[in-house]
Amino acid sequence: MIIIGELINSTRDIIKEKIEERDKEYIQDIALKQQKAGAEFIDVNAGAFVHDEIEHLLWLVEITQEVLDKPLSLDSPNEKALEKAAEKHEGIPLINSITLEDDRYGKVLPIVKEYNANVIALCMSDEGMPESADDRIEVADKLINKLINDGVPADNIFVDPIITPISVDCSRGPEILNAIEKIKSWGTGVHITCGLSNISYGLPQRHLLNQAFMVMAIGRGMDSAIIDPLDDYMIKLIRASEVLMNEDQHAMNYLKASRAGELD
Amino acid sequence: MIIIGELINSTRDIIKEKIEERDKEYIQDIALKQQKAGAEFIDVNAGAFVHDEIEHLLWLVEITQEVLDKPLSLDSPNEKALEKAAEKHEGIPLINSITLEDDRYGKVLPIVKEYNANVIALCMSDEGMPESADDRIEVADKLINKLINDGVPADNIFVDPIITPISVDCSRGPEILNAIEKIKSWGTGVHITCGLSNISYGLPQRHLLNQAFMVMAIGRGMDSAIIDPLDDYMIKLIRASEVLMNEDQHAMNYLKASRAGELD
Repeated sequence: MIIIGELINSTRDIIKEKIEERDKEYIQDIALKQQKAGAEFIDVNAGAFVHDEIEHLLWLVEITQEVLDKPLSLDSPNEKALEKAAEKHEGIPLINSITLEDDRYGKVLPIVKEYNANVIALCMSDEGMPESADDRIEVADKLINKLINDGVPADNIFVDPIITPISVDCSRGPEILNAIEKIKSWGTGVHITCGLSNISYGLPQRHLLNQAFMVMAIGRGMDSAIIDPLDDYMIKLIRASEVLMNEDQHAMNYLKASRAGELD
Repeated sequence: MIIIGELINSTRDIIKEKIEERDKEYIQDIALKQQKAGAEFIDVNAGAFVHDEIEHLLWLVEITQEVLDKPLSLDSPNEKALEKAAEKHEGIPLINSITLEDDRYGKVLPIVKEYNANVIALCMSDEGMPESADDRIEVADKLINKLINDGVPADNIFVDPIITPISVDCSRGPEILNAIEKIKSWGTGVHITCGLSNISYGLPQRHLLNQAFMVMAIGRGMDSAIIDPLDDYMIKLIRASEVLMNEDQHAMNYLKASRAGELD
């Protein structure tokens, strides 16, 4: 399971405040905690700053890379910000994100190619957000093929079927799970990821819904997620799910985590 | 989710001891706690008593029915014990269990028919325990058809694909999940259940593996399980899973449980 740590996001009030204050120590601490908890990529987002996003994002890249071993997920709606951040980033980043929208695709692809980057491929097109499983599957199919044809290796692609809140429409849960299973069944070798916590928006005890959805999605073939890696119980359930899906050979990782007291 | 409470089982040392001591209060307390936690059937098993199983089982039926509103799951390898227990049981029990083995089938079916009982249909045949998903599916198909042809309503049948430990063979997790999905896809209207905790036998932190497997299985169509209903976190994850699978209309049960503080 490739975990993308979501906590350094300027849409969270406390993070926005700490970025404005240039509280390097606070941000570095959250970056390190996410890495220690098992995140393979640490997402950085300064999108809440409309006028000076680039300056803030570049500061985030600089100070987090000072302390991290793992690469960043560069997260912005602004292609210029992605370009500048990728240029500054040392090592191979994850670009968050490309879509099937003509304009977005045309601007983000060159960045992905130039840095041989990993990329989150959001199942969104010029027709807007997908509704049904079929919509998701159709966009995923086109987007994966387009990226592979344009020379992006399958292993660098993280398809995100787009999670929308079940509080808005109760049928969304099964729809998204079906889309994950279908995308997995193609055997293209791409990863499947998602911004998990959207699923529980508007409902109480969101951690329960997030954890259950994560486990179900792993059961259908999802192998990555954008989550809060500091949710201890989520991480424990992920370790157990990997054993159950036979993706943890002889339960070696699970047994090692158990011996280290990480499952207590 | 139809929960069958598994705690009153004589293979557990403490229960065996309390049955021998005729500690009515202790057993009744466990029965009531399981009912309160949401169990629809309370399993009673005296199978550890080789020579006087029937006497002990009838005592369990008597004293638990004194206090319970919900019916029992009558659990025995001995058809005579099932017959006597079903005769004593007030209301409609769950018979645990029938199999495709000729001898067992022939002896248990008349009991199921006489009391219009629910029945757990274990996917076992005269060829023994199933290995692969295909074995499970084949036995399930035959057993379901046989029961329906013999006049047992689909809604009374609880198919159990038989969970075997992943510590013995890591490929068992996906196999069993695939079997559940396939059985569900037939649309026969039978329930799918399982003795969940076998999955984690031989591994540490079994509750994590049990919880994750439960959630994955619900995600594939399982609608019942034989579990410890006093595992609080399991019950919370089940409630969340029902919302995600669109089996809790408008999340009404989830919201009600949340307001009652049951998800805290």
